[in-house]
Amino acid sequence: MTKLRASKLYAPVPGFRFAALAAGIKKKEGALDVGLLVADADVSTAAVFTKNRVKAAPVRVAARRVRGGVARAVLVNAGNANACTGAAGTKATLASTAAIARALGVDPARVVPASTGVIGVPLPAEKIEAVAPRLVKKLSEGGVRHFSRAILTTDRGPKLARVDFEVGGQTATVLAIAKGAGMIHPNMATTLAFVVTDAKVKAEDLSVALRAATELTFNRISVDGDTSTNDAIVAMASGATGATLRGASLAVFQRALEEALEGVALQIVADGEGAEHVAKIVVEGATSDRAALQIARTMATSSLVKTAMHGQDPNWGRLLAAAGRSGARFDPERAEVRLGEVVVFRDGLTTMDAATEARAAKVMAKARYEIGLRLREGSGSAFYWTCDLGHEYVRINADYRS
Amino acid sequence: MTKLRASKLYAPVPGFRFAALAAGIKKKEGALDVGLLVADADVSTAAVFTKNRVKAAPVRVAARRVRGGVARAVLVNAGNANACTGAAGTKATLASTAAIARALGVDPARVVPASTGVIGVPLPAEKIEAVAPRLVKKLSEGGVRHFSRAILTTDRGPKLARVDFEVGGQTATVLAIAKGAGMIHPNMATTLAFVVTDAKVKAEDLSVALRAATELTFNRISVDGDTSTNDAIVAMASGATGATLRGASLAVFQRALEEALEGVALQIVADGEGAEHVAKIVVEGATSDRAALQIARTMATSSLVKTAMHGQDPNWGRLLAAAGRSGARFDPERAEVRLGEVVVFRDGLTTMDAATEARAAKVMAKARYEIGLRLREGSGSAFYWTCDLGHEYVRINADYRS
Repeated sequence: MTKLRASKLYAPVPGFRFAALAAGIKKKEGALDVGLLVADADVSTAAVFTKNRVKAAPVRVAARRVRGGVARAVLVNAGNANACTGAAGTKATLASTAAIARALGVDPARVVPASTGVIGVPLPAEKIEAVAPRLVKKLSEGGVRHFSRAILTTDRGPKLARVDFEVGGQTATVLAIAKGAGMIHPNMATTLAFVVTDAKVKAEDLSVALRAATELTFNRISVDGDTSTNDAIVAMASGATGATLRGASLAVFQRALEEALEGVALQIVADGEGAEHVAKIVVEGATSDRAALQIARTMATSSLVKTAMHGQDPNWGRLLAAAGRSGARFDPERAEVRLGEVVVFRDGLTTMDAATEARAAKVMAKARYEIGLRLREGSGSAFYWTCDLGHEYVRINADYRS
Repeated sequence: MTKLRASKLYAPVPGFRFAALAAGIKKKEGALDVGLLVADADVSTAAVFTKNRVKAAPVRVAARRVRGGVARAVLVNAGNANACTGAAGTKATLASTAAIARALGVDPARVVPASTGVIGVPLPAEKIEAVAPRLVKKLSEGGVRHFSRAILTTDRGPKLARVDFEVGGQTATVLAIAKGAGMIHPNMATTLAFVVTDAKVKAEDLSVALRAATELTFNRISVDGDTSTNDAIVAMASGATGATLRGASLAVFQRALEEALEGVALQIVADGEGAEHVAKIVVEGATSDRAALQIARTMATSSLVKTAMHGQDPNWGRLLAAAGRSGARFDPERAEVRLGEVVVFRDGLTTMDAATEARAAKVMAKARYEIGLRLREGSGSAFYWTCDLGHEYVRINADYRS
């Protein structure tokens, strides 16, 4: 598998066309706010959605439409989440996807909707209906760049990851396009990701692969532990390249999908408002994988750990205390804590002296590093990605008004 | 029951004497850092401790010593948590309590230790041994004020709550003395509370009452969701007043204890670093009390809810989204959200117009207010106290170095 350079990120993926337009949904005039992704035919499709009890209208409609494992297009808008908007919201989602279906000449049930933006205001469907024919006319294999910009809200910039892989002597591609500054603003954010591949994958296999890859990527990142009303990941496989994947070749695809999703997931963590540092928290030697994940997640979501990261403070006490309250069983007397390769706590005692502290602080000055916890209780292991919590987070989230 | 005014907070509680001294454990010269609380005889004692897997030496020793339901004294130091200090830490706790026991002429097993401060450095027991005789000589019924100051670390000031109640024609008192700026600094904080009463309460009853009162007070406050290695609440009943409480009079005591603990618990929330607003999150109509508590706790610990509080932003979307990800089942279409008395969301739609927003923002400008969520799923209810998350929190926790 090869990760392509940034210049190749926007290259076409056979079987898919993209377009974007400014429909006037975002406040800023002329800002791209509607994106359309269309397959050349009905193709294998799978999706995962937010587990939040409060689901936006597009999430409910999309979940219904992908159930059969087939779709033709994805319509995304930014600037309005169409969440908590009751019957009017559902109506707006149906009307806007119907307009796109008409312009494409396809069944409306094949158009998967996604929205992100302000909560509580019904989507102005008429704005999408007005641009639908123009949007369809703009569709092109090279439209990835515009599409990737149209789906953003508070993001610092577009998020893409592209992985090439070999199957049966042919090169296939997985391209992931995402938005989200870390599930931070239920009012202005959301995590969305769209994955396209030219490989041929059965819908059931695509669904299994997507769930597994999401578990190891999007479900292992934390900015502030909040989950939005609109989170969705949609994957489509055009099958333009090669024969149907199965067995070993399916496993290769699975790895490529995971790598692509990890690529955009980490871009989201790094874009957590105000984030300056990303850490991979790795827990080993727990009583079970489940216990390890529980510990890693508790550490990753601790405000004290995240502020220590911001202060570049090798505060093993906070790391250990967060692990200790996770609910998982372990004996701190046998625990080892490290920052990068620097061990700062071992066998119930800190190993910190001035030299160690200086080395640990140096690790924490990096943009990305690892925080390790080894427990010697069993063979359970897990990881979780997190970012630091700084003044920018407070500024953006406290000073932003709905 | 009467809440006494502040001027009476420091009045004696029959059967108990207090003292405090500067032993040189805190860095600041002359700062009170050792406190001693002694009953006139061995008395009924109960305690609850942190559930963190990582327990400081004093917590482990104290848990063993209160198991029998009897104690004579509590020795507290601030400036050093004696946590994660291995065998040396245990030895230091044993040595310092032994020195106090010698000076008092009592069994060392009757002296309950508590520590708060820096993690990872063994307690300098010799400093406590050196002042033990002088500390015991200073004991007096009026020593409450000094004691309440000696146990502080990052607190803005001492925290006391006193409740008088009538039993059998006599007036008895519950006095709670606490420290803690909201379980915020595992390095420099911890929540400690010491409760003394002159009522006569059997150890088993005291234990049951303490557990119940803790559940409704200290276990319902959140500053940042972190729990320290040293948290402890110790309650002692001298029995100087009246006959042994049982039945209705025990229930009166239970209420008084709860009120006293609530008093200091709310002082801790309000002292959450940088906190300017305290909110009581009240969830009603959930499928069960347990579900209601799960929702209330998720809302109370959400960084997004807490930053919205800081920004005085009536952001019902964040409240609802936090409730939605709690794991508890409810239909958002039937939910009602209110800020104080102002309903901002009802039947799946916001009720927010300019006038409502202005009224809601006014509620959020208050130092203390209620956030209500009514669900119409069943009769489960629960509450949880929280505070806002502002720049001060980040400043204190990111800029503080271990």
